[in-house]
Amino acid sequence: MSSPLRLGVAGLGTVGGALLKLLDRQASALAARTGREIAVVAVTAQDRGKARDLDPARFDWASDPVALAASPEIDVFVELIGGADGIARAAVETALQEGKSVVTANKALLAKHGLHLAKLAEAKGAALGFEASVAGGIPIIKTLRDSLAGNQVSRVYGILNGTCNYILSRMETEQLSFGQCLAEAQKLGYAEADPSFDIGGYDTAHKLAILTALAFGTEIAPDAIAVEGIEHITLADISAAAELGYRIKLLGVAERTAAGIEQRVHPTMVPRSSAIAQVMGVTNAVTIDADAVQELTLVGPGAGGEATASSVIADIADIARGMKVPPFGLPMRALAPLHRAPLQTHEGGYYIRLSVYDRSGAAAAIATRMAERTISLESIVQRRRAGELKGASAVPVVLITHATSEKLIGEALKDVLADGFIAEPPQVIRIERE
Amino acid sequence: MSSPLRLGVAGLGTVGGALLKLLDRQASALAARTGREIAVVAVTAQDRGKARDLDPARFDWASDPVALAASPEIDVFVELIGGADGIARAAVETALQEGKSVVTANKALLAKHGLHLAKLAEAKGAALGFEASVAGGIPIIKTLRDSLAGNQVSRVYGILNGTCNYILSRMETEQLSFGQCLAEAQKLGYAEADPSFDIGGYDTAHKLAILTALAFGTEIAPDAIAVEGIEHITLADISAAAELGYRIKLLGVAERTAAGIEQRVHPTMVPRSSAIAQVMGVTNAVTIDADAVQELTLVGPGAGGEATASSVIADIADIARGMKVPPFGLPMRALAPLHRAPLQTHEGGYYIRLSVYDRSGAAAAIATRMAERTISLESIVQRRRAGELKGASAVPVVLITHATSEKLIGEALKDVLADGFIAEPPQVIRIERE
Repeated sequence: MSSPLRLGVAGLGTVGGALLKLLDRQASALAARTGREIAVVAVTAQDRGKARDLDPARFDWASDPVALAASPEIDVFVELIGGADGIARAAVETALQEGKSVVTANKALLAKHGLHLAKLAEAKGAALGFEASVAGGIPIIKTLRDSLAGNQVSRVYGILNGTCNYILSRMETEQLSFGQCLAEAQKLGYAEADPSFDIGGYDTAHKLAILTALAFGTEIAPDAIAVEGIEHITLADISAAAELGYRIKLLGVAERTAAGIEQRVHPTMVPRSSAIAQVMGVTNAVTIDADAVQELTLVGPGAGGEATASSVIADIADIARGMKVPPFGLPMRALAPLHRAPLQTHEGGYYIRLSVYDRSGAAAAIATRMAERTISLESIVQRRRAGELKGASAVPVVLITHATSEKLIGEALKDVLADGFIAEPPQVIRIERE
Repeated sequence: MSSPLRLGVAGLGTVGGALLKLLDRQASALAARTGREIAVVAVTAQDRGKARDLDPARFDWASDPVALAASPEIDVFVELIGGADGIARAAVETALQEGKSVVTANKALLAKHGLHLAKLAEAKGAALGFEASVAGGIPIIKTLRDSLAGNQVSRVYGILNGTCNYILSRMETEQLSFGQCLAEAQKLGYAEADPSFDIGGYDTAHKLAILTALAFGTEIAPDAIAVEGIEHITLADISAAAELGYRIKLLGVAERTAAGIEQRVHPTMVPRSSAIAQVMGVTNAVTIDADAVQELTLVGPGAGGEATASSVIADIADIARGMKVPPFGLPMRALAPLHRAPLQTHEGGYYIRLSVYDRSGAAAAIATRMAERTISLESIVQRRRAGELKGASAVPVVLITHATSEKLIGEALKDVLADGFIAEPPQVIRIERE
């Protein structure tokens, strides 16, 4: 058996704590699988005094992450601090500069500085593993990078944020409002005190940016992602989706189009019978469309200490086994600049919910405005709530369109607005067919 | 860039033909991803004259697979011939003896001789890749072997045979008999002229034996699998399952129990709302339950030329990148003998369909026999077909039991049979809850 692989772990929160426990529990199995003992030789955490389920005397404590990263005692620096900049970035750069391999769960760091870090790793001959940065315990990085090496990917999409999927699932199953479900998610620890990063779609966007680079061999371009969150989804939309045979999911979608790579994060109507629609609660799912394998879907836990630690260990085991693959599956010079497709050209069906003043002819006028823009309708449903009197208030009108462009939808809705029929800004949700 | 990786491909059927085309199409991408040109330098096939979509003049033709395997011109021998013994085995052994790496899609060979071949590969320092041998394009081998290195697996199960899943799906959606759907599958090329290997569950068993070894670090033991096929599933069972909120799937299940490793292949009732129940047609799916990742499911094409070739290329790319992992994730001496759990101890719910002579008190008598064996019933449904007269014939009685053992079910049904109430042998299908 070779010499032990010596780890330095920075950050002992949910994932860091679970990692130490898991490494203990699987120590002999991991040594057998990788041919080396895997030893945590030093750790660091913001608050050393904080009660933890571990015996702090077992480890050397480094004064700070950068000192740990620079330590000659470690072979691999495991970064579980988080944050795109600051100490996490400084420590990862230090480790790579020293030629040490890095394993990280930090999607914000990867999305913002992934190219720079991967170049540094390449220059120094170090590994940079980030399986845990996207979709928790799901081995999506390795699948895209290694298992699909013989494929050309045309689309990758998925449910990448457990908080949003939990909220949308609960709204439907419990018929609760967005606000009620968000409060519940916060109480259960699924959502942060400031939830805007999750529910605004930005967390999904970070993860999508990483997947895009791997799937299409392009540079990471998080700023080229059109991002829309779930804050404006109402119970009315959830119910209308259900009635029409759809379910609403927050998807991250990256797609190769004739006009370039399209990256978008937004609430999406997916057919209720589709595999992705079955994914409820905090579970994540990623589907890859590629020429040879056609369609491959991975479903699993998108968060949680042990599930994420499982992915951290997968990267550590690869390093212990001496596997060396470029972080993004290609030499850095081979990554193409990301040519961004203009989103307005996106072709697809749309769900539109309008709050229409209850006047005769309103629905017909709306349908006419759509027809003027060559938007054809799959369905139009106008429904008065039980007990409401005609003319008493605005009523919901729900349209489902056939494939059209965002640009035409925008123009038609501008006309509808100008006609004075609608009481509130329209709700527009893209439909993703399989 | 390093020297080219030189492949010899034996077998140019559906997978072999697709592999050559795919290697052509992705040549430059693969070279960029692996850092080496991947070149097919020689091939061999049973019938060289057979019309193929390839220019035969492009390749050197070896006289036979063993000669190809021994050729000093190749680095990697790709075996796409099939069959557990005979020429495929001889050629793979020859290649490994020569220290050449082998990539194969041959599950029968792996299930029967996998240990011997892996030992040979280990002794010679060669790689043995078999991602394509289980579940076509789904990267289940790499997921179990590499991505879950930090986990202890408790159960792995899945839909591993596309032919059976196609037949069961069509029976339900089209309300056709087993025989009609089998004939249709044969017409579409999904089932062989002699379909017994697929529908009898043996193909699933071979794949399960390979997954078991990877999941539990045990020796391959296909003879320790209890195998039951789908030949006796009737439309009555499909319909009863649907009514009761289940769907019937042919599952391969390997599970760690207190009594040892349980391996079984049989038609299974799964909850209609479960992820595995949504997998229809020729698609495959594998779910892994493990301590850290909890539950991970992979869904994708279980067969087809390009999808299977995608997995063959994944193994080739790993070899080109210089990755070296033990074939079963552990040094061969570390694989434990498989301690087989006696199947009679299997605890689970059961679906039982009886054809009962229509006498008063029959259902009550059956329920009593179950109670005598401490089998508690979740439901009991007796239904006369429309238009049938009381006493005219046997009527179906469907029981769903709570968790019990196969042994107790067998004893209770023996008593029911002795009571003279039932007209046909009982149909018994296990229920797998998530």
